[in-house]
Amino acid sequence: MTATGKKPKAEPAPPTTLFLFGAHGDLVKRLLMPALYNLSRDGLLGEGLRIVGVDHNAISDADFAKKLEDFIRTEAASKVKGNAEHALDPQLWAQLAKGISYVQGDFLDDGTYADIASKIADSGTGNAVFYLATAPRFFSEVVQRLGRANLLEESPGAFRRVVIEKPFGSDLATAEALNACLLKVMTEKQIYRIDHYLGKETVQNILISRFSNVLFEAFWNNHYIDHVQITAAETVGVETRGSFFENTGTLRDMVPNHLFQLLAMIAMEPPAAFGADAVRGEKAKVIGAVRPWSLEDARANSVRGQYTAGEIGGKALPGYRQEANVAPDSSTETFVALKVMIDNWRWVGVPFYLRTGKRMADSLAEIVVRFKQIPHSIFNQPTSSFQPNCLVIRLQPDEGLRMNLMAKTPGDGMRLKPAELELDFRESFKTPRMDAYERLLLDVLRGQLTLFMRGDELEAAWEWVEPILDNWEQNDSAPIPYTAGTWGPAAASALIGRDGLQWREEALPED
Amino acid sequence: MTATGKKPKAEPAPPTTLFLFGAHGDLVKRLLMPALYNLSRDGLLGEGLRIVGVDHNAISDADFAKKLEDFIRTEAASKVKGNAEHALDPQLWAQLAKGISYVQGDFLDDGTYADIASKIADSGTGNAVFYLATAPRFFSEVVQRLGRANLLEESPGAFRRVVIEKPFGSDLATAEALNACLLKVMTEKQIYRIDHYLGKETVQNILISRFSNVLFEAFWNNHYIDHVQITAAETVGVETRGSFFENTGTLRDMVPNHLFQLLAMIAMEPPAAFGADAVRGEKAKVIGAVRPWSLEDARANSVRGQYTAGEIGGKALPGYRQEANVAPDSSTETFVALKVMIDNWRWVGVPFYLRTGKRMADSLAEIVVRFKQIPHSIFNQPTSSFQPNCLVIRLQPDEGLRMNLMAKTPGDGMRLKPAELELDFRESFKTPRMDAYERLLLDVLRGQLTLFMRGDELEAAWEWVEPILDNWEQNDSAPIPYTAGTWGPAAASALIGRDGLQWREEALPED
Repeated sequence: MTATGKKPKAEPAPPTTLFLFGAHGDLVKRLLMPALYNLSRDGLLGEGLRIVGVDHNAISDADFAKKLEDFIRTEAASKVKGNAEHALDPQLWAQLAKGISYVQGDFLDDGTYADIASKIADSGTGNAVFYLATAPRFFSEVVQRLGRANLLEESPGAFRRVVIEKPFGSDLATAEALNACLLKVMTEKQIYRIDHYLGKETVQNILISRFSNVLFEAFWNNHYIDHVQITAAETVGVETRGSFFENTGTLRDMVPNHLFQLLAMIAMEPPAAFGADAVRGEKAKVIGAVRPWSLEDARANSVRGQYTAGEIGGKALPGYRQEANVAPDSSTETFVALKVMIDNWRWVGVPFYLRTGKRMADSLAEIVVRFKQIPHSIFNQPTSSFQPNCLVIRLQPDEGLRMNLMAKTPGDGMRLKPAELELDFRESFKTPRMDAYERLLLDVLRGQLTLFMRGDELEAAWEWVEPILDNWEQNDSAPIPYTAGTWGPAAASALIGRDGLQWREEALPED
Repeated sequence: MTATGKKPKAEPAPPTTLFLFGAHGDLVKRLLMPALYNLSRDGLLGEGLRIVGVDHNAISDADFAKKLEDFIRTEAASKVKGNAEHALDPQLWAQLAKGISYVQGDFLDDGTYADIASKIADSGTGNAVFYLATAPRFFSEVVQRLGRANLLEESPGAFRRVVIEKPFGSDLATAEALNACLLKVMTEKQIYRIDHYLGKETVQNILISRFSNVLFEAFWNNHYIDHVQITAAETVGVETRGSFFENTGTLRDMVPNHLFQLLAMIAMEPPAAFGADAVRGEKAKVIGAVRPWSLEDARANSVRGQYTAGEIGGKALPGYRQEANVAPDSSTETFVALKVMIDNWRWVGVPFYLRTGKRMADSLAEIVVRFKQIPHSIFNQPTSSFQPNCLVIRLQPDEGLRMNLMAKTPGDGMRLKPAELELDFRESFKTPRMDAYERLLLDVLRGQLTLFMRGDELEAAWEWVEPILDNWEQNDSAPIPYTAGTWGPAAASALIGRDGLQWREEALPED
């Protein structure tokens, strides 16, 4: 056994004041607080974490803490690691709640930032994280004011970090403008752009598999990989977010961030080190190597869909245009399928098919790496009867890496059968997994930027997306309707079908 | 799913008369009869199998059948597939026993062959298999007489097949002479040279893995494979076979057959088909590509050992020279270690280390395919701390294919750990495995030669072995003593150690 067999003692986060802008929002209640509770339960937060809610509502420190507690107990109970009933551990929560306080103030009011400054001054540590769990229109506003109030100036023993969530702009110009605004008041290394897909165990397993096993490098290229499929499908519709979604659409919402990040994890060259600079440099490089599209190409290689009334599990569902706060003649897409090519030595000739949408047949996020067919069958059955090797990387609803191989049926004769191999060894390890937000929050507190997106990655992704937006705008093409509860418009099957392929769910019904 | 998912109905063997020469020997009682019983139990023998014992002792048909039955019940009970007590199913045995009869006769007496001819004439089928479970000195004698009696002449509906067991000669000249003798009275396609290693499930799994999964071809070459180790170790000594072993020794007994066959399974190029001609042609080719050794090379790349008194599991054991029927100054080796190079495009630069011996620390037959180290660690630990990927193919005592990979420990951080992956899917399949002799006997009856050795493979192997024998003879080098119950002489560790490597059991103690 090597030295790696030994489990290093977990390093707890340094003392920090964590400001949660938009403290009454869903993100804080549903995801951040449960994650912080779990980290605290696992002893990873250390002693000195203070959590400060920032929002415009008036509420006392104690009431704010109580409100969070009540919410977690009722609505987010399943997200916290507890006993069989998922109840909060009262003692543990009490300890976390001790550090919870509240700053009432308008995000646009300089006075709010003076209050924040005194919070930091009172906290006993100069370390501060500003988490912008706000509507996107506040990103620049808050950051500018943090800068003006000198709250982003770092000094030894006093780090200052800003966490933002997507959307990171709505096209190349706005993405560039947002980045420029951020960089006016801080350095790139202070910016933590969260993509929770990158916090998933399985996404990190992609890197471990690729870069700690020499075997993967042998087949991780266009000699052996036939194509890649990346799917992020949801059964939910726009829900209460109609007005936000009308101005966004699925392409902007999912592609330049989540889908391109997954593509980068699969396609990046080996970085020199698992550090932020090296990893993000390689990701930016491969995103930059995605073949740029003319408007003509964009039309040929993209499918834009919008769900109409349908049903899922026997429940009747409205079409997108019937949803609240959606225009009755909306041309916003709720589905997109894309064919992407990467022009570099490793990937040339290997199509990456991306698709994502709402109100689809299943909630599912996965990457399928389909290897080439064996060149010739030596056994007594045609080559076409061999199921090509396939690596399926599942992110949602469950996480897992599975390799499909052909194997011998034991016993008489040389009978072959497809078989599935678990590659992430869940059974072999006792250690529990970690939720994406837990991991990413911990990384923010520890100052580990590797799993956060850098500005240039995003700009490269937006640059690639631009012709698709332009094509839709200039050709005023309306989205193709698809029935809620299906895998999207037939054109999406045709997009991959014209290359003689199928989306995985069509080829392999789960039986 | 492909058409391969469906289990084809097993094809039963055609009606055949199976003559067992040496009917009172251990091979018949311990291995062949239990295998035949199991095949019959699995419905694979069909109706028309008759089993005829041939030997010089006088015994009635019924007594012969009874003797076999008694033996299986007492000595070979664990070898038959039965209920919890491994009891023979009386009805099933009765049905098999109905077809059992006996020919008394001397193998050198032409009259014996006349009796055999009438047995065939009475049997209702012209199909006959002659299984030479005799001392090797009878191989040529029996075969010549079978030929003289026209018993090897095939006609439509009347196949004639001869099965022989090792030793297939004792050097190149005697191997060539034996083959010439066989081919004088029959064609190559009538000769079934058994190497029971080839009948093992796992050996066939090597071919399935390599040739039904395109991924294997990606790393199955000198770019990714560092070296291969093939070990066949026994804890037993020469037991009652001292006088046989004195004239044979471990090199002749194990290397040109078992070890070179395993080497060929690993190293052969993809055959055009899984038929006897194609597979055996590729095996012969790669055995022929093993780098020939001068006497000088032979000395440098071989280690010859002989066990001395020692102990296994607390039990004191005599040295080889103290065994019954062994000369007190014997220079017969009971251990050999070899370094073998294959000079072709796929394997040049990849050493194959072979070792085999008696009275070793463990009973174990396995192939270790050690892949190269990752070229560079991107993680926070040195490259040398990564356990290189490794495919371990275990033939004895248990069978199995396991791949060692590095994996991520779930949870916080990027912690790596070696993990093991089962590649033969024993868990996934309900079908029970099949014993090597069952599979090979069935292949003989069905006329499938793929898993039997062809004459040219053996001659190529003997040709390679020749300089080692010559070196020992000409330099009169005595074997190096090693203590019974160890992994052989230190020189064997030095042989692989001078390349900076270790035999697997030394590198990876099972813990």
